[in-house]
Amino acid sequence: MLNDILQQPSGKLKTFSTVTKDFLPGEFATTTISEINEVATNAAQAFLQYRKKTAAERAIFLESIADEIMALGDELIQRAMLETGLPEARLIGERGRTVGQLKLFAEVLREGSWVEAVIDIAMPDRKPLPRPDIRKMLIPIGPVLVFGASNFPFAFSTAGGDTASALAAGNPVIVKAHEGHLGTNELMAKAITNAAKKTNMPDAVFSFVTSSDVSTIQHLVKQEAIKAIGFTGSYKAGMAIFKTATTERKTPIPVFAEMSSINPVIILPGKLKQDAEAVAAQIAASITLGTGQFCTNPGLLFIIKNEAAEKFITALSKIIAATIPAVMLNKSVCHNYYNSKNKLQQQPGIAVLATVDDAMPDYKGSATLLQTDAVNFIANENLQAEVFGPSSLVVLCNDEQELNEAIHALHGQLTGTIIGDKTDVETFAFCIDALAEKVGRLLFNGVPTGVEVCHAMVHGGPYPSTSNAASTSVGADAIKRFARPICLQDCPAVLLPEALKSGNPLQIMRKINGQYSRDTVED
Amino acid sequence: MLNDILQQPSGKLKTFSTVTKDFLPGEFATTTISEINEVATNAAQAFLQYRKKTAAERAIFLESIADEIMALGDELIQRAMLETGLPEARLIGERGRTVGQLKLFAEVLREGSWVEAVIDIAMPDRKPLPRPDIRKMLIPIGPVLVFGASNFPFAFSTAGGDTASALAAGNPVIVKAHEGHLGTNELMAKAITNAAKKTNMPDAVFSFVTSSDVSTIQHLVKQEAIKAIGFTGSYKAGMAIFKTATTERKTPIPVFAEMSSINPVIILPGKLKQDAEAVAAQIAASITLGTGQFCTNPGLLFIIKNEAAEKFITALSKIIAATIPAVMLNKSVCHNYYNSKNKLQQQPGIAVLATVDDAMPDYKGSATLLQTDAVNFIANENLQAEVFGPSSLVVLCNDEQELNEAIHALHGQLTGTIIGDKTDVETFAFCIDALAEKVGRLLFNGVPTGVEVCHAMVHGGPYPSTSNAASTSVGADAIKRFARPICLQDCPAVLLPEALKSGNPLQIMRKINGQYSRDTVED
Repeated sequence: MLNDILQQPSGKLKTFSTVTKDFLPGEFATTTISEINEVATNAAQAFLQYRKKTAAERAIFLESIADEIMALGDELIQRAMLETGLPEARLIGERGRTVGQLKLFAEVLREGSWVEAVIDIAMPDRKPLPRPDIRKMLIPIGPVLVFGASNFPFAFSTAGGDTASALAAGNPVIVKAHEGHLGTNELMAKAITNAAKKTNMPDAVFSFVTSSDVSTIQHLVKQEAIKAIGFTGSYKAGMAIFKTATTERKTPIPVFAEMSSINPVIILPGKLKQDAEAVAAQIAASITLGTGQFCTNPGLLFIIKNEAAEKFITALSKIIAATIPAVMLNKSVCHNYYNSKNKLQQQPGIAVLATVDDAMPDYKGSATLLQTDAVNFIANENLQAEVFGPSSLVVLCNDEQELNEAIHALHGQLTGTIIGDKTDVETFAFCIDALAEKVGRLLFNGVPTGVEVCHAMVHGGPYPSTSNAASTSVGADAIKRFARPICLQDCPAVLLPEALKSGNPLQIMRKINGQYSRDTVED
Repeated sequence: MLNDILQQPSGKLKTFSTVTKDFLPGEFATTTISEINEVATNAAQAFLQYRKKTAAERAIFLESIADEIMALGDELIQRAMLETGLPEARLIGERGRTVGQLKLFAEVLREGSWVEAVIDIAMPDRKPLPRPDIRKMLIPIGPVLVFGASNFPFAFSTAGGDTASALAAGNPVIVKAHEGHLGTNELMAKAITNAAKKTNMPDAVFSFVTSSDVSTIQHLVKQEAIKAIGFTGSYKAGMAIFKTATTERKTPIPVFAEMSSINPVIILPGKLKQDAEAVAAQIAASITLGTGQFCTNPGLLFIIKNEAAEKFITALSKIIAATIPAVMLNKSVCHNYYNSKNKLQQQPGIAVLATVDDAMPDYKGSATLLQTDAVNFIANENLQAEVFGPSSLVVLCNDEQELNEAIHALHGQLTGTIIGDKTDVETFAFCIDALAEKVGRLLFNGVPTGVEVCHAMVHGGPYPSTSNAASTSVGADAIKRFARPICLQDCPAVLLPEALKSGNPLQIMRKINGQYSRDTVED
């Protein structure tokens, strides 16, 4: 990071605030290599106890974390405001979401079917060979290392979705504290630790590590006790962790990294003809929401050249040009924003449609709208580099064919958005189909910013938006990242876990001989 | 491979038979680099059509492959016998299993719920923000590259489980033909190609590549059109592919490699006291089944020292020493067997309990039983190297504590087996619990060889048994390796896939607002 951290003579760290433009009070100890070894060993030990806790006990733990977070009160909000520059209302909302996530996973645990219990009943008389009794379910994998994001200090950090889903699945969590909000991290860690104590969980069910040293972090990633990694952040950091975790460990482990997405929005001509200005207002709000610091910020706008498109561009440019710069998360996010935006502007064939004076000295992000054509977009992959901040690139297409080719040239994305009316959706079905292949979430007549925490959410997508397109980091199924199936063959009844017992004491949905059912089975 | 392949002056390949001890008739063209590019491009093109086929159409295709395999008749069996040295009855059985797998996936497709449809209904009146309509399901990921195994020329090769599950999920398949059975591969490929034609599937829904050249195979793995890899084979080859696929491609892709397992069997004292000789006979049969050429061959036997253990060892040694060597799959498997067995024997603290004269000149595998103690086992990871063939290592433990420590020292395994009576299972619950953490399948009072193709099977396990402990390569859920979730937000009804339509036309099980149901939902 770019001087966001001040290392004291004591070795302790202070964090810089883009709000006060100074280092904040509070010093944070850094974790040593030998402490990392200890943290990992303790997490492995804690796993032995924690994995024995019932789903109901884990649910109570998660709800207790939610309560403890609320009990932190205004101190949490105030500290996070100073550390991230995010406004109070946003942080209060994000806290609600974070607490909601914890409660969703508690619900998922109480409902219980998430373990995917499958039972194939024995056929002792089958010819030529009898079939044994075979039962399977998901079990926790072991300690999970979580790298939180700067842009969601609650919902994607210390007590965020990765932590909640890993704990829900039955795994201890080690958080690598984000240097941008070390105070917020400490408060959240305290909430989790308090909840663990109150609900009788092993101490090391949660721990965190503070370090801004790359080799220390690599040492952490290489700990054999760690069985999976959840990450939200930059492409560069995500892929460095992915590489270490897959090729430099004795045992390679899965990395669920959510990294880089520019979230294309396809604005179709029918809709544009009806409503160019309303669409422009909607898109502008999404581009500038939270100073553009969302993983799902719409960084690409595809439109087909015509009169309505011109009207749209004019309207959008006007709103962007009038956007008042707001403070960004930290110095390095701000620096990277201007840097990556300038790099993009300097690419051949890029026109500036609207811009606001640089506000870098104030650590503020100035909104920008750029433009290129489809041929240029298709020819130059640099136009797909993420610009994390309030900037978007209009890609003007001559016709459907060019639009389709541009979509085919897209890298993998978290989201893709279609803005279109009924006729558009029919006429451009082939483009929509092509876009679906590139994204984890395809949305219609909305904006990609704003990720609902629910059962059907996919916050994931093909590479490079994530390192694992089969997973989601938001929503109920995020829990499945941190579990693996085990199959029990002819297991004595006394050893069967509750979820697989013949009497179905948990009353969960199971698959019996291939059919969904809550029925009991004969022993 | 060790001269199993003879390259003709024409560049074509001939395969060696351990049965005839000569090269077999038939020459097989090798695939060039430019042909590989073409195969990959064609598979990507075929995907555009194939992914549009309904589940019912894909089911018919899979059943047609099954029919075409049966229609190959005795020619297939005879060729495979010559190419693999496997006996007729085993190959007829394996063909039945292969056809059964294809039919199981056809059933899974017809039942339809495997796509994991989840619907969260819109809440337009929710405060502070309305909730959109969000629906998700699994979709195919694109062309899958399959590396078949030598030891199951039908069930884990050209038309085996990886191919069946990838095709079932909606993906074209490219098979890297196994050099051990190129003639069998051609026949199986013909069956699949015929089925594709008869059921109106795109030509390139299936293709295969023949090459014994490492750089050509790497070129294949690096094709961007390929979106996932299924592999069954050696640790060395599996990890080479894993490394290329995760770090040397522009887009890293998932590798489902089933590689190396020594399948520990824990034989507990109660059971042994009752039945030492019967257990010895059961275990001996599993060690020598198919000349030990099973991924699930029991290569480690843990027992606690006592009188019954001695009786067991004596009985087992006697059977092993009397085992008549049988022909192995090919020269290199045979060579590697003797080589890895000798390496293991030369480790400190290894005693030979029973052995049969080397039969390497006849390409036959001689059964062997070795012994060590728990302290030695725990101290030396080399004792966990896979010996692929009819060999097993007895690990004598002084007591429960040593047994428990030895289990903790185990690497990840496909299977772990407990042989024990009711009291054993209670007394050694902590050991069983520890073993569960190491394996994909935990079985009781049976043998690990023999993998049931069913819904609850897990043929997978922690590294190094596989590269992805969250997956299975056998059973219904193998299909999920080759799919990813997509989320549709406020999708117009006309564009919703059948599985997500409000009326539930497929009548599948779905999750609606978190609850399992086959109900329709309001639009």
